[in-house]
Amino acid sequence: MDEFSLIDAIVAALGDATSGRGVVLGPGDDASIATLPPDCDLVSSIDAFVEGVHFPRGAPGAHVGHRVLGASASDLAAMGADPLHALVAVTLGAEHGHWVVDLARGLGAAARSFGIAIVGGNLARGPLAITVSVHGYAPRGVALRRSGARAGDRVFVSGDVGAAGAALASLPHDPPPIATLARARFGDACYGVARYYLPQPRLALGVALRGVATAAIDVSDGLVADLGHVCRASGVGARIELERVPIAPGVDAERAIAAGDDYELVFTAPPGADERLASFGVTEIGAVVDEPGVVVTRAGRRIDLTSAGYQHFG
Amino acid sequence: MDEFSLIDAIVAALGDATSGRGVVLGPGDDASIATLPPDCDLVSSIDAFVEGVHFPRGAPGAHVGHRVLGASASDLAAMGADPLHALVAVTLGAEHGHWVVDLARGLGAAARSFGIAIVGGNLARGPLAITVSVHGYAPRGVALRRSGARAGDRVFVSGDVGAAGAALASLPHDPPPIATLARARFGDACYGVARYYLPQPRLALGVALRGVATAAIDVSDGLVADLGHVCRASGVGARIELERVPIAPGVDAERAIAAGDDYELVFTAPPGADERLASFGVTEIGAVVDEPGVVVTRAGRRIDLTSAGYQHFG
Repeated sequence: MDEFSLIDAIVAALGDATSGRGVVLGPGDDASIATLPPDCDLVSSIDAFVEGVHFPRGAPGAHVGHRVLGASASDLAAMGADPLHALVAVTLGAEHGHWVVDLARGLGAAARSFGIAIVGGNLARGPLAITVSVHGYAPRGVALRRSGARAGDRVFVSGDVGAAGAALASLPHDPPPIATLARARFGDACYGVARYYLPQPRLALGVALRGVATAAIDVSDGLVADLGHVCRASGVGARIELERVPIAPGVDAERAIAAGDDYELVFTAPPGADERLASFGVTEIGAVVDEPGVVVTRAGRRIDLTSAGYQHFG
Repeated sequence: MDEFSLIDAIVAALGDATSGRGVVLGPGDDASIATLPPDCDLVSSIDAFVEGVHFPRGAPGAHVGHRVLGASASDLAAMGADPLHALVAVTLGAEHGHWVVDLARGLGAAARSFGIAIVGGNLARGPLAITVSVHGYAPRGVALRRSGARAGDRVFVSGDVGAAGAALASLPHDPPPIATLARARFGDACYGVARYYLPQPRLALGVALRGVATAAIDVSDGLVADLGHVCRASGVGARIELERVPIAPGVDAERAIAAGDDYELVFTAPPGADERLASFGVTEIGAVVDEPGVVVTRAGRRIDLTSAGYQHFG
């Protein structure tokens, strides 16, 4: 397949995911054109995913497509932004022609389910890697940040944590089909694999947190590490009670709070905020304090966090 | 250097390039926040640059930073968009810590000169590669596209072509410093190297083309190949007189029109448009016709284009 046939096949695989709210011009020109609702801010993020680093060598393209768009859109959720569109750059070898069309199928399906249009991209020779730039909007001045947590706020987390990280250690070479993973529920054998390949960005929760949360972040590096980013940005600390943290079934609690890839939201808010957010499955797990750092206790005793993998990339 | 020290060093190297027109929140959160001028469209593009494919192994970081931002911003010029901001994802090995800080210096300097803010990014382990997502704006409905060329329009090109492509074949391992390259003029020994490492996106020309050009594209694949994209998108063809094409000194004319990396603008417009654009150094090189395809003539005789490298990536 030459470049132009491949691009045609990719655009066909994306299907109607190339159009959507605000899209004036999708793929095929020098750039895309879109409109933003009036009086809104543009919220933008970029993430790179490399074969063998951020997804397993040999992973099916459609699975990777779901994963990279879900993980990228999670940054919009953490900002309380409504999704708009994404641009996707792929570097690939000549042998990856069919794989990238399969990737596009996964991207397209994920894009439709999240309400994101894929408006542009780039294909280039290189080691297999995908970079996703996602864009959303929020009414002017209300996007959530990491920096607003204040002592006295409570700490909340959505859903449950640890499953994706636990699955990462032993991902099957041939994962179940997307349709099977999409049906996996808390407690199912393939729940962790589903959490890994089909991250569900908490976009509706993010929007509901506008004007409620004082700070927010998504769990990509791990609950403790990501809460640490919020604390540093806010000039505060946090105390977490491990017994209160919603842990995925079969996962060690201390590992779960160090594991990344869950893409749940961790946020701070005044006490009682969870009552306004009951429909989102939010759990209060601790409190914001003046002293810097994140302290985790179990049965009232402090857990040593220095031994676990609380820093990546180092 | 751990990830967080490296990010601090990168943000320091970017300096005041992280802020600018419309930037509400720059690097350091889950996403950036920006505002768009009222009644404007958002124009967005993404491009990937891989070591050994899109820039030479061992090329200095600062040079690569200038090149990747200039090449990326050129897509905004081709759309007639004013620049706003960029997000930059870098995949790199542990040995590239200092290199990526040097890259950030180049990105920062280029960003300031183009009026683009660097508002966010991503660092990840992987083969050395840089992906740039650029964003700009244009008054609603006036952004340029590839699809508006009509028979009877004339074809124009800015500046001169061929120098960057010719330099690419023999780039020096230790290129002259940025400051030296920035002073290189048409005819200087290092003119080609300067065109390669310091592409100058024709942003002001792009803005001037709004309401004037019927279609536009930037020369990244080569003059003939890129004009071919315009013709296909517009459902027309083009006839180019090679004698009229402004060729860089010392470059074979047939090679020059097949060479990429110049980042000049090729556009179509009604006859006489060049008179309104005199200050931009624009040359009329041919005409748009009904018959599909791009035909190039020299002394009235048609040149065979099939032998040259008019398709990349195949």
